[in-house]
Amino acid sequence: MIQKILIANRGEIALRIVRACRELGIKTLAVYSEADVQSLHVQLADEAICIGGPKSADSYLRADRIISAAEIADVDAIHPGYGFLSENARFAEQCESCNIKFIGPKSKSIKMMGDKSVAKDTVRKAGVPIVPGSDGPVASEAEAVKIARKIGYPIIIKAVAGGGGRGMRIAHNDVSFAKEYHVARNEAEKAFGNGAVYIEKYIEKPRHIEFQILADSHGKVLHLGERDCSVQRRHQKLIEESPSPFLTPDLRKKMGKAAVKAASAAEYENAGTIEFLVDAKGNYYFIEMNTRIQVEHPVTEEVTGIDLIKQQIRVANGEKLEFDQSDIKWEKHAIECRINAEDPARNFAPSPGTISLYYAPGGHGVRVDSHAYGGYTIPSHYDSMIGKLICFGSSRKIALERTYRALSEYIIRGVKTTIPLHKAIMADPIFIEGKATTAYMEEFLNRTPTDLFS
Amino acid sequence: MIQKILIANRGEIALRIVRACRELGIKTLAVYSEADVQSLHVQLADEAICIGGPKSADSYLRADRIISAAEIADVDAIHPGYGFLSENARFAEQCESCNIKFIGPKSKSIKMMGDKSVAKDTVRKAGVPIVPGSDGPVASEAEAVKIARKIGYPIIIKAVAGGGGRGMRIAHNDVSFAKEYHVARNEAEKAFGNGAVYIEKYIEKPRHIEFQILADSHGKVLHLGERDCSVQRRHQKLIEESPSPFLTPDLRKKMGKAAVKAASAAEYENAGTIEFLVDAKGNYYFIEMNTRIQVEHPVTEEVTGIDLIKQQIRVANGEKLEFDQSDIKWEKHAIECRINAEDPARNFAPSPGTISLYYAPGGHGVRVDSHAYGGYTIPSHYDSMIGKLICFGSSRKIALERTYRALSEYIIRGVKTTIPLHKAIMADPIFIEGKATTAYMEEFLNRTPTDLFS
Repeated sequence: MIQKILIANRGEIALRIVRACRELGIKTLAVYSEADVQSLHVQLADEAICIGGPKSADSYLRADRIISAAEIADVDAIHPGYGFLSENARFAEQCESCNIKFIGPKSKSIKMMGDKSVAKDTVRKAGVPIVPGSDGPVASEAEAVKIARKIGYPIIIKAVAGGGGRGMRIAHNDVSFAKEYHVARNEAEKAFGNGAVYIEKYIEKPRHIEFQILADSHGKVLHLGERDCSVQRRHQKLIEESPSPFLTPDLRKKMGKAAVKAASAAEYENAGTIEFLVDAKGNYYFIEMNTRIQVEHPVTEEVTGIDLIKQQIRVANGEKLEFDQSDIKWEKHAIECRINAEDPARNFAPSPGTISLYYAPGGHGVRVDSHAYGGYTIPSHYDSMIGKLICFGSSRKIALERTYRALSEYIIRGVKTTIPLHKAIMADPIFIEGKATTAYMEEFLNRTPTDLFS
Repeated sequence: MIQKILIANRGEIALRIVRACRELGIKTLAVYSEADVQSLHVQLADEAICIGGPKSADSYLRADRIISAAEIADVDAIHPGYGFLSENARFAEQCESCNIKFIGPKSKSIKMMGDKSVAKDTVRKAGVPIVPGSDGPVASEAEAVKIARKIGYPIIIKAVAGGGGRGMRIAHNDVSFAKEYHVARNEAEKAFGNGAVYIEKYIEKPRHIEFQILADSHGKVLHLGERDCSVQRRHQKLIEESPSPFLTPDLRKKMGKAAVKAASAAEYENAGTIEFLVDAKGNYYFIEMNTRIQVEHPVTEEVTGIDLIKQQIRVANGEKLEFDQSDIKWEKHAIECRINAEDPARNFAPSPGTISLYYAPGGHGVRVDSHAYGGYTIPSHYDSMIGKLICFGSSRKIALERTYRALSEYIIRGVKTTIPLHKAIMADPIFIEGKATTAYMEEFLNRTPTDLFS
C-alpha cells in the first residue's frame, strides 16, 4: 500500500497532487528547486527537499537527485505530474528498478507511445484511423506526387527533422505540389541540415479532441469522455472543454471505442490521453497519446465526478477500477481557462514578477486550481501558467456564463495575465456557438484589436 | 422581465447574489453602510449607493432608504438575502406597493409563517406533525399538569415572551413538573415581566433537519431534499450537510412530502425552508418555516446541481420551474462549514480586525463563498461570518476527507476563526459516524480541550 508519495513536479499540479494525497491520508514529499522555496506545494507537503538550482535541468529534470530524495525519505511512489520527467521512459524504468512505484504507465508503454511512428503503427494495427501519409520520408518527387494523389489533396509536406513550422508546406493540387515540394526540401535543408520530407493528408481547420483514458493493472481500460482543446496558440492549449460542442453522441461513442482500442494496444495502465484531429465532416485521426495526467484533466473530473489523481494513485497501488464504462455519465459541461502570466497584447510575452494583489473567483460551479497567492513571486524559469479556472454547470450555456462571470471577478495585480483574453473569447460569437477549430486563435487574434484583451 | 436588482444585504450573500445576476446578465445595485465601503459586493456590483451608518438600524434595516435607492436607480426587483429585512412582511408589502418585485414569497406568506402559532396551526391542519403541546399559554398549574400528562413526559415549559433559554425548564414527571412550573413562571416574570408559559413535548437530543422548498407562482411546489443542521451552538448553526446521515430513503420521502404540504398550506412561492426536529426513533415535528434563502443553501446546490439564487430570480420573474420532483436527484454529498471570525477557545468571542493574510482552499470538490480577502477589515457591527466552505463528493466519506483537507490549507491571519474547531469536529468519531444531534456541540466543547481547536 502506498503511504508516502514524492511529487516530482511544481506549481499547480504539485498542489493538486498534495490535495489528493491529503484526502487519501497519504504523506507527501515535495522536491523543489531554489526558485520554488516560497511555492505553496512546498509549504503544504508534509516534507520538502531542495534538489537543485532554478533551471529545470538542475532540479526537476534531475532523475538521479529525485530518486535519491525518494530513497532518503523512504517514499513508496513518485507522481511525476505533467511535463518534466512525466513521459521519460528511462525515469519510469529507474523507479521500477529501485522498487519505487511510478504513478503512471509501465515504461514500455511510455516508450511505445513516445516514438511517434511506433505509436501510429501500433494504433493503426489496432484499427484506429491515423492521418493518411507516406510511410516515412519520400524518396523522390515522382514518388511523392504519386502518394499525394493517392491520399488526395490538400496535403502537407513536413520536414522529417522539422519543428516550429519550418520545412512545412501545404499543396492543393499537382501544380502547387511541384513547387512546394522543392521549397519544403530547401527550407528543411537550410534549417536542419536534412532535406528529407514526408507527406500527410492536410486536415483543414481541424478540431483537437482528446479522450481521457483510465486503465487498471487488471486489464480494464475505460474512457472518461472527451475534451475539446481546439483553442490553441502555437500548439499551446488555452481553453479546454467537455463535452465537445462538435461531437454527436454517435461520434463520441465511435471515438471513445477507438481511444480504448488505442490504449489497449499500448497495454496501457493508469491515466492517459488519446489525441485526435477531427475534420469538419467528423472524420477523426489519431495523432498521439499522452502517457501522463494532462493539464486539462479537471474538466473531465467536473463532468464525470471522478477524481483522476486519486484514481491514478489507486491504479498504481494495484487496485481495480471500481466502475465500468456504463457507469460513467457526462451530465455536466465544464470549461477550463489557463491563466498564464503573459501579456496577450504584447505577443504573449511572459510576465514574471510578484503578484501584489490576488483574489480568485469562487461560488457555485467555480473551481480554481492554482498555486498563486498575494505576495507570490512567479519565477521566470518555468512555464507561465499560474492557475486554471474551471467553471461547470448543467449546460454549456451556463458554463460559458459562469466562466465569464468568474473571469470578471478575478483580481491579479503586479503581473499581466491571459484573463482579459479569456474574457474576450467568452464573449466572442464564434466561440459561444461552439465553432472554434485549431485555426480559431490565430483568426481571433488577427481580427480583434489588442486593447480588447489587454 | 427583471433587468436590474437591488441587493438589500451585505457580506457573502450579497456577493452570491451579484454572481448569480452576472451569470444571468442582470445588472446589480449594491446598497451599503459606511462600514462596508471596502466590501467586495460593493466593488463587484454594477452600481452602489451608501444608505447610512454602520449600525444595521441605520442602514440595512432602513426599508425607507432602501426603497428610495431602488427608485432612484430604477431597479425592477429587490433581493433581501437572509437576515435584515428578508422576513419582514411589511418590507415585502412596501416593495409590492411600489411595484418593485420582492424576490421571495408574497407578504401574506411571510406573515403567516412569521407568526409561530399561526404557522403551526396552518401546517397542523395540512396534516404535518408539530411538537405536541398546550394550545397557547396554560391558565393554571392544574390545567398544565393535565396537559403534561396527556402529552407524556418529558415536557418542556417555555415562557411565552421567552428567548435565550430563560424561562425554559424541563420536567420528567409530575413531581419535577410541580417544581419547574413555578421556577419557569418566576424566571419569565423576572426576565420579561410576563409570567405566562406554555408546554411542549420535550424532544431529547433531536436532530435539526430542514427541507429546501422551491415553488413557482403557477402552483408547482417542490422539495430539493434535506439539510442536516444538527451541529449548532446556542441555536447558531455551524455545520450543515446533505443528505442527512440519519434519514432513510423512506423517511426522506415522508418528510419531503410533509414539507411540500406545509409550504403549500402557506401558499408559498419562491425558495423557503421547512425546519423539523427529528427524534431518535424518526418521529419528526415541524418547528418553523424560514421564508427566505438560507445561509446553508449551497449544500443543496451542490447535491442537486440547482442554482437556488437563479431559481429565486426566475420565480420572481413569473417563470415556471423547468423541472419536476422526479427530476431532482441527490447523487452527491456536501458539507458546509461556517467560517466565523470568532475565537472558539475563548467562548466564541467575536474577533473583528484586519485579515493580514488570506488564502482560501481550492481544487476538486471545493467551493468557497466568501467576501473576505487579504487586507479586508471585518466590521464589528454585523455577524461574524466571513465565509462558507462547501466541500462535496460522491460519498459522505469523500466529503468529510475533502472538508478536512480544505480546512487544513486555509490560511487566515490577523483574526481568530472557527477553522481549527471545524478541523477538530471533522476528526471527531461521533461526527464522522453521523451521530451528531443538536446536543453534540455542547458535549463536544465540554469534552475537548480548547487547545485542540485554538
